[in-house]
Formats: sequence, structure tokens, C-alpha cells
Amino acid sequence: MRSEFEFIRNLKKKYDLERIGDDCAVLPKDPKTDLVITADLLVEDIDFRLDWTRPEFIGYKALAVSLSDVAAMGATPKWAMLSIGVPGKVWPGKFVDKFYEGWFELAAQYNLELIGGDVSRTPEKIVVDSIVAGEVPKGKAILRSGAKPGDLIFMTGAVGGASGGLGMLESGFRFSTAGKKRKRLIARQLRPNPRVDIGNQLSDAKLATAMIDISDGFSSDLSHICMANGTGATITNLPADSDLYEYFSDDAVTDLALNGGEDFELMFTVSPKRVSELEGLSVIEVGVITADANKIELIRGETAKHLRPGGYRHF
Amino acid sequence: MRSEFEFIRNLKKKYDLERIGDDCAVLPKDPKTDLVITADLLVEDIDFRLDWTRPEFIGYKALAVSLSDVAAMGATPKWAMLSIGVPGKVWPGKFVDKFYEGWFELAAQYNLELIGGDVSRTPEKIVVDSIVAGEVPKGKAILRSGAKPGDLIFMTGAVGGASGGLGMLESGFRFSTAGKKRKRLIARQLRPNPRVDIGNQLSDAKLATAMIDISDGFSSDLSHICMANGTGATITNLPADSDLYEYFSDDAVTDLALNGGEDFELMFTVSPKRVSELEGLSVIEVGVITADANKIELIRGETAKHLRPGGYRHF
Repeated sequence: MRSEFEFIRNLKKKYDLERIGDDCAVLPKDPKTDLVITADLLVEDIDFRLDWTRPEFIGYKALAVSLSDVAAMGATPKWAMLSIGVPGKVWPGKFVDKFYEGWFELAAQYNLELIGGDVSRTPEKIVVDSIVAGEVPKGKAILRSGAKPGDLIFMTGAVGGASGGLGMLESGFRFSTAGKKRKRLIARQLRPNPRVDIGNQLSDAKLATAMIDISDGFSSDLSHICMANGTGATITNLPADSDLYEYFSDDAVTDLALNGGEDFELMFTVSPKRVSELEGLSVIEVGVITADANKIELIRGETAKHLRPGGYRHF
Repeated sequence: MRSEFEFIRNLKKKYDLERIGDDCAVLPKDPKTDLVITADLLVEDIDFRLDWTRPEFIGYKALAVSLSDVAAMGATPKWAMLSIGVPGKVWPGKFVDKFYEGWFELAAQYNLELIGGDVSRTPEKIVVDSIVAGEVPKGKAILRSGAKPGDLIFMTGAVGGASGGLGMLESGFRFSTAGKKRKRLIARQLRPNPRVDIGNQLSDAKLATAMIDISDGFSSDLSHICMANGTGATITNLPADSDLYEYFSDDAVTDLALNGGEDFELMFTVSPKRVSELEGLSVIEVGVITADANKIELIRGETAKHLRPGGYRHF
């Protein structure tokens, strides 16, 4: 069965859709500025479960995932739309108000204006479509393409925590009752923080040759970068969330860091000549882009493991 | 229980959302141009039923409802995004491809570019969020506000057909087997055509003082116009779809024309001094804006009936 990635590639080809394939579409705005825009669908019982989270966390996360896409383009978020569908039994309660409170809590951090959207009834499950637009100086959006062999690969933070938190939820732990470290992991799953500020710093400094956010998973998103550039990559330092080691075996931690999604850290590449300019930024060097198309290796001591993209797929 | 209209009014007030409340949000694009943008959520078993329609009709209608909002601003559609969520059982079949075929059939008529969106899994029902953006010369978007007492009210076509078609579907008639007139009504429900061209002509001629599309229903959308202007209205000629009279009583036809939604005709107002300039445009004069705030009357012969907004509400 075709995955959603294959489906989108076919659609792009069939209908000649040039702007599809990056974290955001890039459109000309005015002579000095490009507009970037993204949409993210969140569905109850697929992306969140009401008994595991809070309405305000769902609102916060709905915005966070789209802000993260805007951040991955090096753009500054400007405005947003929000479409929400809720069943008749949910509408009279507090869900919708709390949902918007969470959304506006994060929006306020970036002076983001809500300009529109839709409100609808659904038969059973809550659905949210989150749309965020940002601005970037003309021609300066940081794409998935643009990396060259020899460019070093960096991350804005560790990965695996969000899916470790999901594991905690699946094991019956809850945000309100969990201990400190478990709560931190669960929070990474339920209420992620997009890396908008550092994305903007990288954009201002014109340092990143390519960038993506970790939504599908480290291995999957790294393979998106490699495919966009016809390159491979060698990972020498997989930055796994340190909270994970207390609850998971080393192998399980590696698997979470490689294939767990939704960490919303940024992965970006920098020319080796300019790496010194990253000083002062809180980033982690994880590897290097290579000329071997689509060969992605994880080096651990003496052993090299060939990585296959293993992140989340809807289909 | 609060309706979705009350909810949106409260949200607008609570979070100071100035751009919400028209068919589209209006945003500055460049020194000469404004961007208008709208989002419409369509949900299976709320907005469409798979056994009543065709996948390509759903794609066509998803785009039509948003194009209609852009048309109601007098704007020219430019680009679109499409988020679609489908259950696992639907993904392997032809639904998704046929859906996009219908969408692109309408998009091609306006050289509309699909620039992004999302593809997701849902637990059970299909959901679609349709986003369309258009452009209009700066400051020239036609709002719901702008009408003055004495302005004449026009429609681009008759109403009630779409909900008449829905009645046919509810009675067991189907698009593929219905006779000519029933088929025409059912098509108005399943595959509506947005009035983009005439919206653009009205915009170019700077004739409309206010405009809205008939999505909620004639009485409801007229009341939106009156509320936005602090006016009332007198309707002397309710333009009911002529196909309806063969299947419905006169009273039922009046009810469908007043309160049936989704006809996607445009309702607009014109200063009496400029009415002669409408010559050559296919429009119907239906009434006049009055100074009596929110008093909306339907005149039929000697009798005047006070109209309450009675269109479709989700909540």
C-alpha cells in the first residue's frame, strides 16, 4: 500500500505542484518578503487521546506543530487560522474554550494573530486543522535542499523524549500524577515547544544550508533531507533525550531517538567553513552529509549501522 | 446553548480578533494588493454522505465552498491548501484519487495552484479542510459592511435549489438515476458552482457596497449583512429556484428559498444611483436595505412577514 509520502510525491508529479515538498510552501509576498505557510491536521484518537491530555494542551500542540514547520523554514510566524470540528456532545462543555486558551497561550509568545478558520460539528471525534503563515526575506527561506557533502549536521536538542512520553502514557502514567522525569517526557509529547527563536537566529545569520523539523522522526526526517539533496549522511552522535535512560534499555533509547517522532527539534546543516559561527547557539553536532546518495549510517564505536527511515506513517 | 455564531463573536471579543467576521480575512500583501483567505471544514455524515455523492463531487464541492467565500470578497482566487483525513479502510481504494480529480477539475477553471496541506489518518470518518487565498486591489475587498439604507439588494441567482436537492436525496433519489429536473437540484447540492466571475466583475466595476455568499441560507446571510451595517432590509422578490415548484408546495418552496443553505449565489447591495450600471450582468433585484436595525421583512402582495434568520447551524 502506498504511504502518504508516496501519495504526495505522485500528486506533485501528476498535477505539477512545484511548491509542495518542504515544511512550508513558499510564496512571493512583496518585493522584499516571501510568505511561508503550512497546514497540520490533528485528529482525536490518532494524534491525541482525550483521557491522556488536556484541552489546553491540545490547543497548544496544534499551534506548536505548525509553528515548528514555520521555524524549520527560518521564518518569523505572522498569522494563523484554525479550523475545529467537535461532536455535539463536546460543544456545550469547557473543551472548546480551554482548547483556545492553550492555543492563545502559545500564540501570545510570538504575537501571532488568529485571522480566521472554521467551526463545525463532527459525528464523533474532534478534528483540528492548524494553519500558520510566516515571513522571511525574499529568497532566504531555508529549504530541505541546499545541503552539500561535507556539510555538518546539527540538532537544536535531543530527540526521543516525545515518543518516550507516549510510551509512558501507553503504560498508564499521566501528566498530573507522574514523577518529575516522567512528567518531563510526557510534557514533550503533550505540549511540545517549537524552536522558533533559534530557527530565526539561524536564518538571520544565514548559517543553515538546509533545515527540517523532527516531526516524523530523526531517521525519517534525515532521509527527507538526504533525498532532497541526493546525498547520504553519517551520524556519529545520536542525541537521545537523557531522561529516557532511566526507564528504557539502551537499545530502546536508540530506537526512540531514531524513530520516535514529534520532538519538534530542528535538524540543520552548516558548511564546515562556517561552523565556528555557531558559537553561543545551543546546538548539538550529530554528523556529516556524505556524497553516497541515500546511504545513511549510524556510527557507534567500531560498528556502522545502515539506517532506514522508520518514523511515524499514517499509511 | 451558544450557536457557533455566538461562540465566534465571543472569541473575537475576548482575544481582540479584528480580522474575523467576514467571508474571508483580509491581510496586506504588497503596496497595491490585499490577500484574502478562507478555510472551510467538510466532515463526512455532516456535510456529505458517501452513499449520496461521488468522491469527485466531494473534491469539487470542498473547493467550491471556499472559492465562493473568495468570490464574495470580490477577489481573484490565487492559491489553495487542502488538508484531508481518511480512515484506514478508505485509503487503499479510489476515493482519494477521485477526490483530487474533482478538486483539480474546478481548480483548473481558475488556474488555482495547490501549494500545500496535510494528509492524515482518521479513526472513522473523512474530513477535509479547504483553504483558498485570493487577491484584490488594496482596500477594495467587498465586505459585509458598507451597505447604506436605500441601497438595493441583488442576487446572482435563485436560491433553495441546493436544499431542495438535499430533500431529494433524503427521499431516496440519487444523482445517477434521477430525472432531469431532480438531477439539476441534486447537482446544486452535490456539485455547486461558485460565482467567481461575476464577483470579479462587480469588484472591477466597484459597484457592490456589501457582499456575502449564500452558504448558511438567504435569511441568515441577509441578517449577517444587516447586522454588519446596523440596518434592516425589505425583500420584495424572493428568487426561489424554479425547479422546486414541481416537487414542493408554494410554502415549502418559500421555506427552502429563505432557509435552505449552500446555494453559493452572491448577495450584494448597490447604491440606487448606480443601479443602471448593472445592465448586462445576470443579476436579480430582490429588495432594499432599510434604516430599521435588524428588522427584515418579506413582502408578498398585501402581507409583510417578519423574517428571522433560519439557515443552517452546526450548534
